[in-house]
Amino acid sequence: MNGIVVRNIQRADKSAIDTLERLGVSTVHEAQGRSGLMQPYMRPLWRGARIAGAATTALCHPGDNWMIHVAAEVIKPGDVLVVACSSENADGAFGELLATSLKARGAKGIVLDLGCRDAAEISEMHFPVWSRAISAKGTVKASVGSVNVPVVCAGVHIKPGDVVVADDDGVVVVPRLDAAKVAKAGEEREKKEAGSRARLQKGELGLDLYDMRKALAEKGLKYIDGPLD
Amino acid sequence: MNGIVVRNIQRADKSAIDTLERLGVSTVHEAQGRSGLMQPYMRPLWRGARIAGAATTALCHPGDNWMIHVAAEVIKPGDVLVVACSSENADGAFGELLATSLKARGAKGIVLDLGCRDAAEISEMHFPVWSRAISAKGTVKASVGSVNVPVVCAGVHIKPGDVVVADDDGVVVVPRLDAAKVAKAGEEREKKEAGSRARLQKGELGLDLYDMRKALAEKGLKYIDGPLD
Amino acid sequence: MNGIVVRNIQRADKSAIDTLERLGVSTVHEAQGRSGLMQPYMRPLWRGARIAGAATTALCHPGDNWMIHVAAEVIKPGDVLVVACSSENADGAFGELLATSLKARGAKGIVLDLGCRDAAEISEMHFPVWSRAISAKGTVKASVGSVNVPVVCAGVHIKPGDVVVADDDGVVVVPRLDAAKVAKAGEEREKKEAGSRARLQKGELGLDLYDMRKALAEKGLKYIDGPLD
Amino acid sequence: MNGIVVRNIQRADKSAIDTLERLGVSTVHEAQGRSGLMQPYMRPLWRGARIAGAATTALCHPGDNWMIHVAAEVIKPGDVLVVACSSENADGAFGELLATSLKARGAKGIVLDLGCRDAAEISEMHFPVWSRAISAKGTVKASVGSVNVPVVCAGVHIKPGDVVVADDDGVVVVPRLDAAKVAKAGEEREKKEAGSRARLQKGELGLDLYDMRKALAEKGLKYIDGPLD
Amino acid sequence: MNGIVVRNIQRADKSAIDTLERLGVSTVHEAQGRSGLMQPYMRPLWRGARIAGAATTALCHPGDNWMIHVAAEVIKPGDVLVVACSSENADGAFGELLATSLKARGAKGIVLDLGCRDAAEISEMHFPVWSRAISAKGTVKASVGSVNVPVVCAGVHIKPGDVVVADDDGVVVVPRLDAAKVAKAGEEREKKEAGSRARLQKGELGLDLYDMRKALAEKGLKYIDGPLD
Amino acid sequence: MNGIVVRNIQRADKSAIDTLERLGVSTVHEAQGRSGLMQPYMRPLWRGARIAGAATTALCHPGDNWMIHVAAEVIKPGDVLVVACSSENADGAFGELLATSLKARGAKGIVLDLGCRDAAEISEMHFPVWSRAISAKGTVKASVGSVNVPVVCAGVHIKPGDVVVADDDGVVVVPRLDAAKVAKAGEEREKKEAGSRARLQKGELGLDLYDMRKALAEKGLKYIDGPLD
Repeated sequence: MNGIVVRNIQRADKSAIDTLERLGVSTVHEAQGRSGLMQPYMRPLWRGARIAGAATTALCHPGDNWMIHVAAEVIKPGDVLVVACSSENADGAFGELLATSLKARGAKGIVLDLGCRDAAEISEMHFPVWSRAISAKGTVKASVGSVNVPVVCAGVHIKPGDVVVADDDGVVVVPRLDAAKVAKAGEEREKKEAGSRARLQKGELGLDLYDMRKALAEKGLKYIDGPLD
Repeated sequence: MNGIVVRNIQRADKSAIDTLERLGVSTVHEAQGRSGLMQPYMRPLWRGARIAGAATTALCHPGDNWMIHVAAEVIKPGDVLVVACSSENADGAFGELLATSLKARGAKGIVLDLGCRDAAEISEMHFPVWSRAISAKGTVKASVGSVNVPVVCAGVHIKPGDVVVADDDGVVVVPRLDAAKVAKAGEEREKKEAGSRARLQKGELGLDLYDMRKALAEKGLKYIDGPLD
Repeated sequence: MNGIVVRNIQRADKSAIDTLERLGVSTVHEAQGRSGLMQPYMRPLWRGARIAGAATTALCHPGDNWMIHVAAEVIKPGDVLVVACSSENADGAFGELLATSLKARGAKGIVLDLGCRDAAEISEMHFPVWSRAISAKGTVKASVGSVNVPVVCAGVHIKPGDVVVADDDGVVVVPRLDAAKVAKAGEEREKKEAGSRARLQKGELGLDLYDMRKALAEKGLKYIDGPLD
Repeated sequence: MNGIVVRNIQRADKSAIDTLERLGVSTVHEAQGRSGLMQPYMRPLWRGARIAGAATTALCHPGDNWMIHVAAEVIKPGDVLVVACSSENADGAFGELLATSLKARGAKGIVLDLGCRDAAEISEMHFPVWSRAISAKGTVKASVGSVNVPVVCAGVHIKPGDVVVADDDGVVVVPRLDAAKVAKAGEEREKKEAGSRARLQKGELGLDLYDMRKALAEKGLKYIDGPLD
Repeated sequence: MNGIVVRNIQRADKSAIDTLERLGVSTVHEAQGRSGLMQPYMRPLWRGARIAGAATTALCHPGDNWMIHVAAEVIKPGDVLVVACSSENADGAFGELLATSLKARGAKGIVLDLGCRDAAEISEMHFPVWSRAISAKGTVKASVGSVNVPVVCAGVHIKPGDVVVADDDGVVVVPRLDAAKVAKAGEEREKKEAGSRARLQKGELGLDLYDMRKALAEKGLKYIDGPLD
Repeated sequence: MNGIVVRNIQRADKSAIDTLERLGVSTVHEAQGRSGLMQPYMRPLWRGARIAGAATTALCHPGDNWMIHVAAEVIKPGDVLVVACSSENADGAFGELLATSLKARGAKGIVLDLGCRDAAEISEMHFPVWSRAISAKGTVKASVGSVNVPVVCAGVHIKPGDVVVADDDGVVVVPRLDAAKVAKAGEEREKKEAGSRARLQKGELGLDLYDMRKALAEKGLKYIDGPLD
């Protein structure tokens, strides 16, 4: 599916997106069975952002950012733009002017398996960016790709309208139809973790809190008094 | 050319250097036809510096920083020291004492295709450093290299006296004799981008601003209403 | 030695540890003859921490953080937990709940040759972490490893009770029985560097301060007036 | 979809698979519009194999090869086993005993985003393997994954029954329903290339054969007689 | 321990070494509890060698191969030279002349966490080499390291006299005092695998051979008839 | 210098090229003072080739091989085509049809800082290729670069007409005007090495042959009888 732009997509439920945003990447990743996480080379341009939104997707080619301009037209307020590349490339496909444009169009942020430039200016704008590199390398507008087709970005398959959650821990994708279910599971996990946190803060051990001693013994773990030398 | 120190070099024009510093790496890289950019593994030790200066160059060997000491004598106030290495190496060839020395000699900063250490102390000094790694690994003073000879640093060929521009986006090199021309082209680009920025902020699309629609259609881009599933 | 937990270990001398902490990684690494430094991919989660402590060690398996829970029981206040992995893996084996637990148990920090998650939360807690990656990838509790056995972590062999020093420059290990000797050597180095710093700040050259000119000439270094072109 | 084994899948058409096998990876990749190629770190264990088959898929976890055993039951003669991993891992999940088993079950080969061991023995058996590494590192059987669910392997989304083509150039995936169409396009490309080859062998230039001179001139390419220095 | 050469070392038992050589890396690694394996970037210069021997160790510095010459004097016939480096470096520290020398001194092969050059000549000599890279980069003889001290090579701690086993699967280290025990465990594993191989060749499944079905069910693995779409 | 093709270049002396070819990469690299070596990721597609020739250079852009077609016209029999890329990219810019074309035009081989495909076919043709990767990824013909301008390829600055020497050890560049001098130095080195080889084969040590014992002692190397434990 190259050379196609899909204008309208179905987006995940807004309230589920809001919940997933609040929960953050690590909790959401666990809540959906430890799946959907992009590879850890995807790092935020600046620390402290936490966003979630429906994905508008774009597929670019190495050294070429043309489809980001095309995507800027079809993206809707609240969306996150997810940019994949047809082969490994770290060129600076996204800079301050495109950030200005996406911000003006209402995009919440961008996740790109390419490089980002104008690091100082975009950080100052507080526009959220996750990328594989910071690179000033300029790109061309020569090869058409696609917008709003399924892509693989940083190791994860994503369809337009799926939920993208991104923060300092990386980027996770939740399939559109699973959003509500995962949001609910995440909230349950959050509650459970609050209880665990309180007990751990008092010095209780995970060994007891999660009842691990028996399983460890069955697996053959042995305790020795020591010291050994 | 090993084992040679050239005491005097011809430097790029001061006013061109000042303009290139203000413009920053991404604009300068574009203004000279997207060339001269060091590989993106060259990162600033701390965020927020933007410098430009004539290059004093040094060629070191892996695990050896002797030539940085030699360069400290011939460098002139306002220069940027550019250190290449004869093979890939990330040892901590530059630390706080050398930073103190270079600062005292008037160097504006250092760009080294090696590692840097004393990260906390140098950041506090606000001495600008771009390096391939942060590493405490100590180096020896055993093999002579050269100072002020042409080198390849992080993928870019650089001659003594060429302009080095460095900021949060990386490091770019402008040949000495091109400095004025590139500075002028950069200023024109800057003006043009200011106009584009204003229009993009109002929500105008790059598609229209840069008149891309016809070219995209000619390349075969097709729009579909969707949604697809 | 798999499947073993050693409860009691011999720890390096407390006052030596305190001195090593104050000296920091680069000075300690030099003071013990440029050895013991972990590979430079080990980076702090947040900038500005400087810690030293006796090592409690753990050996985990890829994608599995079970032994960190086991280690939380035997670690003693003031220790640093050092986690090795039986093969290269960047999964998020350490997160905010484990940080809460280790903090409650008095650990000074953790050094793990695996990934870390909950980056925002742990940074806010100011719990010191050095890791090979930030990754939200969840881990299982399925395979037993060992606690308080000798391990190789990021290229360095470490025994329980050895001293771990970590700061923005990375992580260095000092064998338990060498701690006092290295601390003393480090303090001497520190004094000597203070003198060098003062002279370098005044513009004196390393060439003269370290008396390098003769050795450089003997190695064949030649000076040319230049400029060459 | 974790913890699921799908026993029966729909496979791509046999005659299309045969054609795709004969055409090989590079031709097939071009014939389907330059898509579907796994990342180039996927290398053959031994040179000279060229296979195609319907994909039986498996999703493993780092350091764990349990699902390969599970897949060995549901795989059908002529299939290629495609093994993805939930995070980056190079452990030796596949060795000579599993190769013996898969061969006995009629599998044509295996493509695994993990490591392979028993390199000498498997090469001697001439069982085709593409992997990300050769590593003797042993794996456990502790965590369930899935078999015959969609996976992302080395950057490509693949569904059970899709066609996998692999040779010395790497691995490409053709969606099941596109197999016949891509096979046909590949044969056309093959014919066209035969004509081109004959002309190039005689010394004709690609510039003329593909009629590139006008486009190059329009893009601004300039010829200079030279020599320049 | 820098600057030390230990002339005499205690070597592992000859008959254990012979057995470990015959068993090969993957079997030995499993037989000692999946430990002792060097990182998989250590690759043979040419395919088909399988050696084992007592380790003579050397510690070099980046870009410097002096200690290999020193080791050539103290190495004994049947030994394998293991060369570590004080920081990551791929320079060509070992070439055909050193191979000639080591061969003349009776060394069985070399394992070096550095680069190797003269690839064609050494392959023709059939001198076994495992290295991290092939590189023609020349090295100096300027910094002393040590010979026959404990080192970490490619992630494994090794003491002089330990057994090194190397083949197409990589390199594994067996501590000297464990050699006989591991050799025996390896032979048992070998026998057991012969039985498994025969059954797998007939098409029996690992699921049944290793009795995995119950454990899989307990872990929650579910079978679905399918096809799913 | 983008968008320029220089038709005529000055080539290094033919007899010097012939000598350099016979000497091979490692000897040539040493003979010119250990400089000019491309980074070791440049590997031959098949083992056993050894070539040298004057360089015709090309500068391509990521994912684009257009300039290789342009270079095929201006290359002269006996030349080696050297292809640089404006940013890091491993796409398969060179395949069997281009190999057929270059062979027909008399090129001796190609060195490309990009990927190569049709590995089986080109190996069978015995056309010599050094590349950074094997990848089937197709490339476009959309952006003009340059031919016969100075480029940086795999870390080395090369001008048209310089000598390229390539074999199983990698690729080295000799400046055109230095070719005769380096060839002569290489022949002298060759003779000297023949003498050393004969002595090493008899078991003489490098320590004595190169008279290293005194220098080692001066650097502080100490011998201990051992064994240590």
